[in-house]
Amino acid sequence: MSLDAVLTRIDDDLPNAIERLLDLLRIPSISTDPTYKPQCSKAAEWLVDDLKSIGIAAETRETPGHPMVVGHVEGDGPHVLFYGHYDVQPVDPLELWDNDPFDPQIEETAKGQVIRGRGSSDDKGQLMTFVEACRAWKAEFGKMPCRITFFFEGEEESGSPSLVPFLEQNKDELKADIALICDTGLFESRVPAIITQLRGLLGEELTITAANKDLHSGMYGGVAMNPIRVLSGILANLHDENGRIQVPNFYDGVPELPADIAEQWRALDFDHSAFLGDVGLSEPAGEQDRSPIEMIWSRPTAEVNGIWGGYFGDGFKTVLPSKAHAKVSFRLVGQQDPHKIREDFRAWVQSQLPKDVEVEFSDHGASSAGHMSTAHPAFEAARSVLGAEWGHEAAFAGCGGSIPVAGYFETILGMDSMLVGWGKDDDQLHSPNEKYDVESFHKGIRSWARVLDAISTKA
Amino acid sequence: MSLDAVLTRIDDDLPNAIERLLDLLRIPSISTDPTYKPQCSKAAEWLVDDLKSIGIAAETRETPGHPMVVGHVEGDGPHVLFYGHYDVQPVDPLELWDNDPFDPQIEETAKGQVIRGRGSSDDKGQLMTFVEACRAWKAEFGKMPCRITFFFEGEEESGSPSLVPFLEQNKDELKADIALICDTGLFESRVPAIITQLRGLLGEELTITAANKDLHSGMYGGVAMNPIRVLSGILANLHDENGRIQVPNFYDGVPELPADIAEQWRALDFDHSAFLGDVGLSEPAGEQDRSPIEMIWSRPTAEVNGIWGGYFGDGFKTVLPSKAHAKVSFRLVGQQDPHKIREDFRAWVQSQLPKDVEVEFSDHGASSAGHMSTAHPAFEAARSVLGAEWGHEAAFAGCGGSIPVAGYFETILGMDSMLVGWGKDDDQLHSPNEKYDVESFHKGIRSWARVLDAISTKA
Repeated sequence: MSLDAVLTRIDDDLPNAIERLLDLLRIPSISTDPTYKPQCSKAAEWLVDDLKSIGIAAETRETPGHPMVVGHVEGDGPHVLFYGHYDVQPVDPLELWDNDPFDPQIEETAKGQVIRGRGSSDDKGQLMTFVEACRAWKAEFGKMPCRITFFFEGEEESGSPSLVPFLEQNKDELKADIALICDTGLFESRVPAIITQLRGLLGEELTITAANKDLHSGMYGGVAMNPIRVLSGILANLHDENGRIQVPNFYDGVPELPADIAEQWRALDFDHSAFLGDVGLSEPAGEQDRSPIEMIWSRPTAEVNGIWGGYFGDGFKTVLPSKAHAKVSFRLVGQQDPHKIREDFRAWVQSQLPKDVEVEFSDHGASSAGHMSTAHPAFEAARSVLGAEWGHEAAFAGCGGSIPVAGYFETILGMDSMLVGWGKDDDQLHSPNEKYDVESFHKGIRSWARVLDAISTKA
Repeated sequence: MSLDAVLTRIDDDLPNAIERLLDLLRIPSISTDPTYKPQCSKAAEWLVDDLKSIGIAAETRETPGHPMVVGHVEGDGPHVLFYGHYDVQPVDPLELWDNDPFDPQIEETAKGQVIRGRGSSDDKGQLMTFVEACRAWKAEFGKMPCRITFFFEGEEESGSPSLVPFLEQNKDELKADIALICDTGLFESRVPAIITQLRGLLGEELTITAANKDLHSGMYGGVAMNPIRVLSGILANLHDENGRIQVPNFYDGVPELPADIAEQWRALDFDHSAFLGDVGLSEPAGEQDRSPIEMIWSRPTAEVNGIWGGYFGDGFKTVLPSKAHAKVSFRLVGQQDPHKIREDFRAWVQSQLPKDVEVEFSDHGASSAGHMSTAHPAFEAARSVLGAEWGHEAAFAGCGGSIPVAGYFETILGMDSMLVGWGKDDDQLHSPNEKYDVESFHKGIRSWARVLDAISTKA
């Protein structure tokens, strides 16, 4: 059987595939820091060369930011677009890394071999699982299993400023039957998960101003309002004692979970004790009348992502500050309207201000929740073959994070996306000592071979 | 009359006195920054030389930190110790200064001439009012009005680490009949104020820890406890809706204001609208059943002086932080026991922590409230003569700040302190563009001449 030959070839070529990934990981393509602009271009060029080496017509395409990589290859059957990103997060605090983040190493650990380095999981390692599957297929059959467009971005970790204009300008070239996105993980580090729900994200920053300058707390303490006191009061009111968010109308458009999805999720038997235990916690902190898996996949949230005001250096300063600040984000689900929620949040904050105190807001973006239609036959095709690779039947799952590119593919290109990936919960994404299990990489490549086979023959 | 001759001499010599002060202000004696250690020594030497120039046996005295300046001069009548400090606060943010903070200038303003520069008010300008009064007295009479010990510190702005050991080691040398401290201001920038109540200060830092590392709010948001949420809740509970502090037993030892002091303070007719209006506020924010003057002088406070956690750079990061921090201080009055309050505060914080969440505290010092006995005749002597200089009868006043040296003089040397000074509310102490009015300097010198005369003849 032809697929078996491809899988054997993948197994045999694994050491070379790892070497290629290490090569890519050595390029410090940190997109948010302008210092690394040449390295971002270098990573894009590396990918172009690698795609060309397996017969794909690829090139970099300039943007006002970092280049896109676009490649095309013909094939029979459906036309798929594969998306990944070659840029990585910054590495600070550097002192928390056990090794140079851009000198990737293969490490033996209690849980097996891992590839350690920035980008190993997010997203260079994941991206390369697809490329390696294509390489093996080409080597075995001299052609690809279907028509494929490769589309790699270099600004995913810095807000993708060039993405929407690029999609708008290249609609016809990029539109395919379906997009495949490899930037997510296994459920509980073991069950292949096809993401069908993504939470949206609304970011707000607020600055509370009381006095018109910093005051001395000896002179003014007791009579002048402290903006940190006001801010704390507002943030303490964000949730009630049951974890419910108290911004008026916030739950408008939040759906109950459909019975079939609820049943599937129950069947996953999510071990929230292990999930929380990994990070030193035990108690689910969200809405107390919801299950932990709903809390992370299908319920909206409000989080303070940053707070600052007054003096926070070493020692002590008896300042009574003029201003206090917070960054607040909301994860959104269902039909929640981010723009309406922004308005309601701002009005709710205003309503809590005492006399003399003012607030300013700034907008840190908004995206609605995503809902994947599973109507395209690729979904069922993928679901039917992944179990053989991982020993667990694949699940249609939710994802607590926000992957805006899937929304753009839908709204700009009119194309559904299938999100599937091989990351594990302990990959340390965006953190020091990021890693990708060799198992994720190896089985990930094999998984793509299976999915491409299923899509090309069944879809 | 002899005093008149001294006052005339002071008037005539004012331009020279200003030049001497400018000379001292040019020395950047920032005590908290080790870079400026030589400049601190230079300021101490400058003072020794200046004291010697008016016949005072002065010298620097080494400490593990910056040197003390000690000078002695004989005279008839009571023995007074004069305290001031020659060190200054750091100057950042430098960009908010209109001029070099260490290139002091005489400026014409709508409210009259000011001396602009770091330390002009706090405390070099104030300290020199006393020295200039002595200089004029010496010039006029060839001797001092009484026996005087001069004692200048160079670490007041960095916590006075060497002060207590130095007092312990030099008790006999430094003990006098009364200490005069010039580091406070006029009431409402116009009424000479002799401080008889000083609030104590208790500093605490707390760190709330939830997860054992920073988390991604997409992956964990909704299920993992956010320490900023916990911290906000605790800080929001510090005050009830009437501004009363809710730490258990906090008000133990807080006295009601004695009727005679209450009457004196009412007579001062404090214009809190102007005091708050100067900094853009209007509403007294403390205990709502107390008068504004009580809020700043005789009632205890709780203030958050700093708060930080999560991400607070530019842009946005959807981090769900592991830790959140705050610096909290309490101003204490009466017999409030700082050590007991520290314990009660810590227990109260602990009692509000949800499961999985921990707190660590660190101690940023504690001092009890100070109460000056006005029994020493110097108090009445000073009060009787200051009205003639300022056009307002002097008041026995409270001070919201904490001046620990007065407490040390009492406990270590068994000596009362009289705190009187000429600063104005808009002097910008510890802030950019610090200034001292030429009026404060000129009338301050004349005031000391009057007080010395009164003390030497009446006390």
